[in-house]
Amino acid sequence: MREIFEAELRQVGDDLIEMSRLVESAIRRAGDALLEADHQLAQEVIASDHAIDRLESELDERCVYLLAQQQPVATDLRVVISALRISASLERMGDLARHVAEIARGRYPAQAVPVPARETFVKMHGAAVHVAQRTTALLATRDVALAAEVQQDDDLLDALHQDTFAATLDPEWPGTTQETVDVTLLGRYYERFGDHGVSVARRITFLVTGNFDDEHARAEA
Amino acid sequence: MREIFEAELRQVGDDLIEMSRLVESAIRRAGDALLEADHQLAQEVIASDHAIDRLESELDERCVYLLAQQQPVATDLRVVISALRISASLERMGDLARHVAEIARGRYPAQAVPVPARETFVKMHGAAVHVAQRTTALLATRDVALAAEVQQDDDLLDALHQDTFAATLDPEWPGTTQETVDVTLLGRYYERFGDHGVSVARRITFLVTGNFDDEHARAEA
Repeated sequence: MREIFEAELRQVGDDLIEMSRLVESAIRRAGDALLEADHQLAQEVIASDHAIDRLESELDERCVYLLAQQQPVATDLRVVISALRISASLERMGDLARHVAEIARGRYPAQAVPVPARETFVKMHGAAVHVAQRTTALLATRDVALAAEVQQDDDLLDALHQDTFAATLDPEWPGTTQETVDVTLLGRYYERFGDHGVSVARRITFLVTGNFDDEHARAEA
Repeated sequence: MREIFEAELRQVGDDLIEMSRLVESAIRRAGDALLEADHQLAQEVIASDHAIDRLESELDERCVYLLAQQQPVATDLRVVISALRISASLERMGDLARHVAEIARGRYPAQAVPVPARETFVKMHGAAVHVAQRTTALLATRDVALAAEVQQDDDLLDALHQDTFAATLDPEWPGTTQETVDVTLLGRYYERFGDHGVSVARRITFLVTGNFDDEHARAEA
């Protein structure tokens, strides 16, 4: 039984890594599509989100099956429950990448982000890709030092989110109302993306360290 | 064992109803605070969100304990897993109510919502309160007809969300940039609130009917 359980659990872990890789690809291409007004790339991100959703469904079924067949207790049980929660966060991160791509597609051939906010979104893009990369690496290596880096990336995303408000509320802001709406939503999407990354990082840290204080960590905003 | 399990499960169900009641109170007071520029009411909503968060933590611990001690299988197992997911959705609904209250507080003594968008938010408030009321009733009665009503309320919220974009992007829109930002975020918060309500309603329907097709229903947007 133990061997079967561990094999199943490895598969769950592999599925989470695969989901995280897809999220990483989605947020990278979504940001590129946004900053380069690339319609085809935006379209690809939107079309590929279903692959993340399907992985989540499969992973969740696998976890429920695992709970039913193997009846894990103690740490094993918490690993499975955490996997369910991590997959939900990754699925949301995929949705948020899709939303970024939808705004890029909606404004094509124009740039969605006007010049005075561009630098902020170049930085948000970089920080969000970092979050996704480190989340994947954390899932693959269980090196909990990476969790602190995800937290730093998220702090940066929060600061950049505040910068988007400072930009649009500046009396000199030259943006149209459409640009104000887009910048507001894009800022929110990136900020939420970072929150979910932190949530995933905390759950993995909990699994590795057994520190239960972090278990109820959640995306707070 | 069966009796203990059923008693524990009843407690989980009662906790979900209690969470949903708190969410209902939060979204009602948040909307009133928004539409009446009521600083004290906004403050109360913000201060009371931790009660929803604490209930979620307790409920999650109870579910994990239940899984470990009672080792449920088949439907019983899915009930517990669904409870974990429903509590996560309710916790997010509480956060979204808090975000509405935060905008109301941030603009006080001014009204956050300018006159041309007011009617839309009066309707969003009504629909969101309906979602919460019916979610509570659905949890309490398991009358799945209520799930269809939650879906209708959510459809209305989606349409009203589109109305907020139509309002701000109208060439006649008289709002300041701050008002555009606030209306954009408030529209998003209400829209997400509805999505989570639908997610909860679908999961309860799944539990009552055993229709697994709905089990992976999630907040899509």
